[in-house]
Amino acid sequence: MALLDQFTSQYGSMSKIDAFGYLEALQSTGSPRKQGKVVLITADTPLKASRGEGKTTTTIALVDALRAQGIDAAAVLRQPSMGITAAGSKGGASGGGKASLSEAEIIDWGLCGEMAAIAAAQNLLVSFAEKAVDEGLLDAILLPRVSEVPSRALRQIAVDRGKLDLAERVVLTPTCELMQIVILSRSMEEIGERVSRIIAGTREGKAVQFGEFIDTWRILGILRDAVKPVLTTTLQGSPVYVHGGPFANVSLGIPSLVSVDMACSLHDVVLVEAGYGADAGAQKWLDIAVREYKAPLPSAAIVVTRATTWQDDPQLSWRYPFHVHRLESLGLPSFPLVNLWDGEDDLVPSLLNHAKEAGFRSAIIGNLYRDGGDGLADQLDEFIAVLNDSSEQLDERNDCEGLASHQDVKLLDKIKLVAQEAYGVPSERILLTPGFESSLDSTQQLCAGAGIDLDKLALLPVKSPAVMTDNDASPEQERTVTLKKVEAHTGAGLVHVNLTTSLTTPMPKIA
Amino acid sequence: MALLDQFTSQYGSMSKIDAFGYLEALQSTGSPRKQGKVVLITADTPLKASRGEGKTTTTIALVDALRAQGIDAAAVLRQPSMGITAAGSKGGASGGGKASLSEAEIIDWGLCGEMAAIAAAQNLLVSFAEKAVDEGLLDAILLPRVSEVPSRALRQIAVDRGKLDLAERVVLTPTCELMQIVILSRSMEEIGERVSRIIAGTREGKAVQFGEFIDTWRILGILRDAVKPVLTTTLQGSPVYVHGGPFANVSLGIPSLVSVDMACSLHDVVLVEAGYGADAGAQKWLDIAVREYKAPLPSAAIVVTRATTWQDDPQLSWRYPFHVHRLESLGLPSFPLVNLWDGEDDLVPSLLNHAKEAGFRSAIIGNLYRDGGDGLADQLDEFIAVLNDSSEQLDERNDCEGLASHQDVKLLDKIKLVAQEAYGVPSERILLTPGFESSLDSTQQLCAGAGIDLDKLALLPVKSPAVMTDNDASPEQERTVTLKKVEAHTGAGLVHVNLTTSLTTPMPKIA
Repeated sequence: MALLDQFTSQYGSMSKIDAFGYLEALQSTGSPRKQGKVVLITADTPLKASRGEGKTTTTIALVDALRAQGIDAAAVLRQPSMGITAAGSKGGASGGGKASLSEAEIIDWGLCGEMAAIAAAQNLLVSFAEKAVDEGLLDAILLPRVSEVPSRALRQIAVDRGKLDLAERVVLTPTCELMQIVILSRSMEEIGERVSRIIAGTREGKAVQFGEFIDTWRILGILRDAVKPVLTTTLQGSPVYVHGGPFANVSLGIPSLVSVDMACSLHDVVLVEAGYGADAGAQKWLDIAVREYKAPLPSAAIVVTRATTWQDDPQLSWRYPFHVHRLESLGLPSFPLVNLWDGEDDLVPSLLNHAKEAGFRSAIIGNLYRDGGDGLADQLDEFIAVLNDSSEQLDERNDCEGLASHQDVKLLDKIKLVAQEAYGVPSERILLTPGFESSLDSTQQLCAGAGIDLDKLALLPVKSPAVMTDNDASPEQERTVTLKKVEAHTGAGLVHVNLTTSLTTPMPKIA
Repeated sequence: MALLDQFTSQYGSMSKIDAFGYLEALQSTGSPRKQGKVVLITADTPLKASRGEGKTTTTIALVDALRAQGIDAAAVLRQPSMGITAAGSKGGASGGGKASLSEAEIIDWGLCGEMAAIAAAQNLLVSFAEKAVDEGLLDAILLPRVSEVPSRALRQIAVDRGKLDLAERVVLTPTCELMQIVILSRSMEEIGERVSRIIAGTREGKAVQFGEFIDTWRILGILRDAVKPVLTTTLQGSPVYVHGGPFANVSLGIPSLVSVDMACSLHDVVLVEAGYGADAGAQKWLDIAVREYKAPLPSAAIVVTRATTWQDDPQLSWRYPFHVHRLESLGLPSFPLVNLWDGEDDLVPSLLNHAKEAGFRSAIIGNLYRDGGDGLADQLDEFIAVLNDSSEQLDERNDCEGLASHQDVKLLDKIKLVAQEAYGVPSERILLTPGFESSLDSTQQLCAGAGIDLDKLALLPVKSPAVMTDNDASPEQERTVTLKKVEAHTGAGLVHVNLTTSLTTPMPKIA
């Protein structure tokens, strides 16, 4: 029996893999493994949060096209937010048309219960914190409750109405700290340690972490299956791993690191989807996963856009080339891909021309919903050549100077680096709201009370998915980024900084 | 391949059965089936809500003991409430010691995500209702949100804090209307129809049902796996089906009807657990499942108690014999079973004597945690003889006059029947709070607005699990039952009536 099979179980029509166990066995037995090259699938900044460019559709079409050419490729996707897809406020995140997953409805609607288990575990932590309040161990709870179902009315709630009327907030499951911990951890032990480091709340103003009053075994018990990536396929039978939640604008929005590690051990080319746009998903993959959590550095990037997103608003058309060039500047060969909609076929010549004028590599253009991987087949030569040329060794790729850790860089300087690199706004045009500095001070103090240096945490910018600056439509020299609020996720090892138009407590309204 | 196998899938280490599909195929193909006899496993009224008598432990020991004697027996259990068991506020509901399930932790902690899916589906209904409010289709929402994690602070909440400050409540998942619908329905179509009939809220005071503004396919999609019972085993390998939520004091607290139907087609003897005490679980199985939803009438009952529960409080020691005799009076051969704890072995002679004095059938006594089914082996002759004697035909058993439908009985008369039969309180000692009559009137009006006759709904008494009357310790002639509130669950076809000490919004505090 192949090593992988020993760690694979059926969950209804899905397979799930105990990736922690498999990777440990792979290492301890020294079994043969591949050293897959990661391709980051990212996108243009969307015109609206509810409008996708087609990253998942592209990922599915591309993995099918690569496999049709005999390349052992696989895709790694994030699990869609069931509340959003079930509520119909956004198309599912399981592709569409010919570029679809074989079990789209299961994937869109709760998969094998992964998000639900994460929600239960984080809500149970809040209940334990309530008990700690009763017992005098805590005065105030800081960890929010979570819900997998969207309801804007839950953003701000009061609990124990009519008695204590305590203010609380509820966040969407995929954006919660426990989801971040599942995405970033490489073992159950690491999850347990990270849960212990979550700040539960305060007592006499001083941070109290969960490790001070709970034993994490109950939480790990609830998460036992949620930590296992799902293996499914495209309609054409290409392998697709699904694990981790979406929403890179307010959280990580990247697949779990362990699912990518596993895919790299099994396949030669691994397409990793991270979204929304490159300013969110790619920024998080590169600046958080690669820089700080030793995720593999991509060998190439695909930057997806719709023709309309790129070109219809002249004031915003700077964004697409900005993303492609910025990724190239990091040494990532970055390919523009235009995901055509019906009736757009005759745009191809002008799109190719624009891509050339913009100094892009060969543009890849197709109606992927209609044609699937077949629409890409004859356009992939340069892309495949780049993959063949790139370094064979993961270690070597990850030694890339440009993505060295920022762990010892001060928080404000980290923000300046991201604003400059990912949004094109220099440090002199970073503005601070009056609230920002006090938020920074109090978060710094809170963390210090728990012995945590805020500057050691990885920066996680929180913003609207549809903008990179305070006003993307303004001329380049006038674009600013305003910093609003700081929040530490000490368990995940992240510090959230809210900027531009951002949702403090992400909880969409049903469409 | 056996017919059952075609409807069975693996979910990790668990099997799940598409019972709807299997039972339909069984009927349409006319395949051979068993006509299993149901044994109701119920209990004494506990001294405290947090203290179980050992129904699950007994069920497990008994199924093992019966199978050891060559009888094809199976058990049907309810899924424990993950929040409660994970939080440690009650022992799991998966037995204990030698009388345990083989996968106790999985069963205690979320099983295969059934409750989580039901929670997501009911919360999504609330989100759809919020959207309907935005669109002017609803003025007020009546369906509560649910949580699988206990938190007393959630009983009463305000949403959209700081803006609308709307009062809402949150109930524990196993007690919610959608769980009731899953327990009582025999097909996905029936679930869809019942969801359509749930009252979402009101518009200009008139009831609005979900069928008026949503299509239920999304809800059915989310429930696709939650409707499938789990098949697991005891440590000894006896088959155990797990499906449906607990808490018969505030909801149904019985296994799903489809899981019992399925078990009866596969086994000769089917042990059905319903709890808390006989005044809750047995009352619900008999008066709701059997009377109104065509569930099989039991061929016998086992009434579990702990020696201390039966005897230590002289003012409450009337309850155990009351339950045993009341079930016998319905024509159900009812066996007392005393679940001994460590150090109680020397109580056996006096317990046997007490049982004799009380006019019980042969008492069955054992330390089931320590000895499992072996502790029962030599005490089952009378019980097995009763099963052998009972009528072979389900249909015939179900024509029992004493459990004919109460569908056309007025609500107040239904309450009188239950108070008399199940709690021993005659109608002249039923008291109404001032609020009760207005609650009855307004619920009647609400239902009438949706074309529903309140008197056609099955009565579901809501009360503390530890009491049957306003004061169980008072002399028999002084015991009263006070009616407090009425709430219709029109989708499930139930009308809740709160009486004695009852929780309006069940949501326990973490222990």
